[in-house]
Amino acid sequence: MDPIRKLTEIFSEFPGIGPRQARRFVYFLLTRQTGYLKNLTFLLNELKGSTTICQSCFRFFPKDKTPTTLCPICRDDGRDKTELTIVSKDIDLENIEKAHVYTGLYFVIGGSVPILEKSPATKIRQKELMETITKRAKNDGLKEIILAMNLNPEGENTREYLESILRPEIKKHSLKLSTLGRGLSTGTELEYSDTETIKNAWKNRA
Amino acid sequence: MDPIRKLTEIFSEFPGIGPRQARRFVYFLLTRQTGYLKNLTFLLNELKGSTTICQSCFRFFPKDKTPTTLCPICRDDGRDKTELTIVSKDIDLENIEKAHVYTGLYFVIGGSVPILEKSPATKIRQKELMETITKRAKNDGLKEIILAMNLNPEGENTREYLESILRPEIKKHSLKLSTLGRGLSTGTELEYSDTETIKNAWKNRA
Amino acid sequence: MDPIRKLTEIFSEFPGIGPRQARRFVYFLLTRQTGYLKNLTFLLNELKGSTTICQSCFRFFPKDKTPTTLCPICRDDGRDKTELTIVSKDIDLENIEKAHVYTGLYFVIGGSVPILEKSPATKIRQKELMETITKRAKNDGLKEIILAMNLNPEGENTREYLESILRPEIKKHSLKLSTLGRGLSTGTELEYSDTETIKNAWKNRA
Amino acid sequence: MDPIRKLTEIFSEFPGIGPRQARRFVYFLLTRQTGYLKNLTFLLNELKGSTTICQSCFRFFPKDKTPTTLCPICRDDGRDKTELTIVSKDIDLENIEKAHVYTGLYFVIGGSVPILEKSPATKIRQKELMETITKRAKNDGLKEIILAMNLNPEGENTREYLESILRPEIKKHSLKLSTLGRGLSTGTELEYSDTETIKNAWKNRA
Repeated sequence: MDPIRKLTEIFSEFPGIGPRQARRFVYFLLTRQTGYLKNLTFLLNELKGSTTICQSCFRFFPKDKTPTTLCPICRDDGRDKTELTIVSKDIDLENIEKAHVYTGLYFVIGGSVPILEKSPATKIRQKELMETITKRAKNDGLKEIILAMNLNPEGENTREYLESILRPEIKKHSLKLSTLGRGLSTGTELEYSDTETIKNAWKNRA
Repeated sequence: MDPIRKLTEIFSEFPGIGPRQARRFVYFLLTRQTGYLKNLTFLLNELKGSTTICQSCFRFFPKDKTPTTLCPICRDDGRDKTELTIVSKDIDLENIEKAHVYTGLYFVIGGSVPILEKSPATKIRQKELMETITKRAKNDGLKEIILAMNLNPEGENTREYLESILRPEIKKHSLKLSTLGRGLSTGTELEYSDTETIKNAWKNRA
Repeated sequence: MDPIRKLTEIFSEFPGIGPRQARRFVYFLLTRQTGYLKNLTFLLNELKGSTTICQSCFRFFPKDKTPTTLCPICRDDGRDKTELTIVSKDIDLENIEKAHVYTGLYFVIGGSVPILEKSPATKIRQKELMETITKRAKNDGLKEIILAMNLNPEGENTREYLESILRPEIKKHSLKLSTLGRGLSTGTELEYSDTETIKNAWKNRA
Repeated sequence: MDPIRKLTEIFSEFPGIGPRQARRFVYFLLTRQTGYLKNLTFLLNELKGSTTICQSCFRFFPKDKTPTTLCPICRDDGRDKTELTIVSKDIDLENIEKAHVYTGLYFVIGGSVPILEKSPATKIRQKELMETITKRAKNDGLKEIILAMNLNPEGENTREYLESILRPEIKKHSLKLSTLGRGLSTGTELEYSDTETIKNAWKNRA
């Protein structure tokens, strides 16, 4: 068994990491104190056991002493239960929270729908999403669903798929369906903008 | 006289061109046919003589056989005279035209106001802008002024300066003052978005 | 305890990894099967125990069933004991081995000497290097020492420091001291070469 | 006639310039003083007339008051006539001169031979090169020919082609044929070096 080679292979599977950087990770670890490695393996061992998935928004969160199935956001009474934002990934949710602009609840679909995907329902938490919306519409006075997808082809495709599967619920419960605003983003220069961005900037001028 | 060195110096002043690429330009020209160079110098000689500045929007445009002081946009009766978009540069105007989203008129201020600039009025066509607005408000039923600046620090500074100098006119003539919409632009991913972009995307959701 | 946050912090210390990518690693791990994580922690736990440092060249290598203090290269009778190449890091050694151009032995100094460093001896395995050279000169007929450092400022500084501390041994044992050849490297274009590279390319023309 | 559009087209043919930057050039020129444009067209008009090709090395150089067919290097008695360096482009020659490492003469072949090129003789000044070598071997005691090509696929292909056509002359006049030295170039790190560069660095160690 060559643990250097094997660990290199595993690290190569990490997002954005090639074999060369994976190998640098292994040598980096070899030159750390034993305590560092012990701490790392301890935390990795604990990771799944000390983390759980929120039964409401389906994001990961650290387990509490008091067992709970809801993440801090979902059990926060101060959050507005009439709004539900759908995001692809946990990190999107966290980045939105950092902006301190939204006080409603979330739902993490856990992926996105690639273009020409044959079975989109398998790519996201579709069943759980539909159940959540039905339940929230009945019990929490849900009024608005916000689709917060990336503005790239896969994000657009996911948004369109979500719109199609949500349409009956939207109608049935008279919900508002909105998507994130479009236009100039930080750093945009008009000279280098694409037609689509200028169109959106124009339509949404204020 | 060393024309290779002198031309290299001149090309080095072109926007975005360093001394190395400037020198490549000169050797490129040396290896062209004489006709190519003659054509280039002919066009450069003609450039100023065959181009003129629109007396209404202040952009450059090719002179016509029939002498005119207005560019094709400004003399187009189909354009909506109640809207005026203020841009920094000719290229911004051209890029907006490509999007086919706006049918009003333009005003090119010919620059932008750097942050901490002591005499901003000298950086842009301020006097001409003020006169244009007064005249358009009186004669053309001007209703809306659109500030189409870059969403970077200098663009924002320019926009704020324009807002401050336009305020009295806006009030006096009850004009609407708008700026381009903000939010996600083509390619934006939520994971990598800054707080400002997310805030704008949220406020402008639709 | 928030293992997501803690693991993010630890991954942020990995070479070339910022807090954002560190967090992506954690979410990546959270969505893996339990077996993947178990395998990773098992290998990390084994890493130090199943790896050892070669007592001759000081690189890391996987432990064998038969206990050994020498890495496969150092115990290979086919390698030429009269040549010793000094490298900074294990990865440099591995990259040289991939080129199949060198059949001698190595010594990994485990670091490099930053410019203006006050105590260079603490940055590298200096004592072990000096002992190795004395021993090899006496017992193995050492003839040539090759300094294989990066051709950047820190690599050059390290090379100069090594030359200064090796000088007495070089003299005493009449060794040859060489450094890697310099000149054009793969992809070099003359138009964009710095003066130093052209000088070296010229001196070493063949 | 739209000179803005026509000039944009011409600038788009400049090396490394796309239509967008070409257009920025035109607007840059439109906003210059008339004197700037006059100076530019004057120099462009003079360029061919005030520049000539050296009848010995075939590089461009500014004409002198006293008419001469030789560039300053070729008519400099201090240069070593026994060495001839063959380069692809004028800029390569200039960059080599900047390194102050070579005191012989040059020959600019004016191009390079693309891989799989069917008629390589048409891509370079082959006839003039062969004549120059014959003449220099007879009259100037030529001893060494140095091939100074880029270390990329097209440069390597050109070098191989030159070696093949020069072989008879090399033999006939007992010349030395050399190519630029190879190995680490400024900035090279061993961890990221390709096998070819390491092989060369090793062979040429000193």
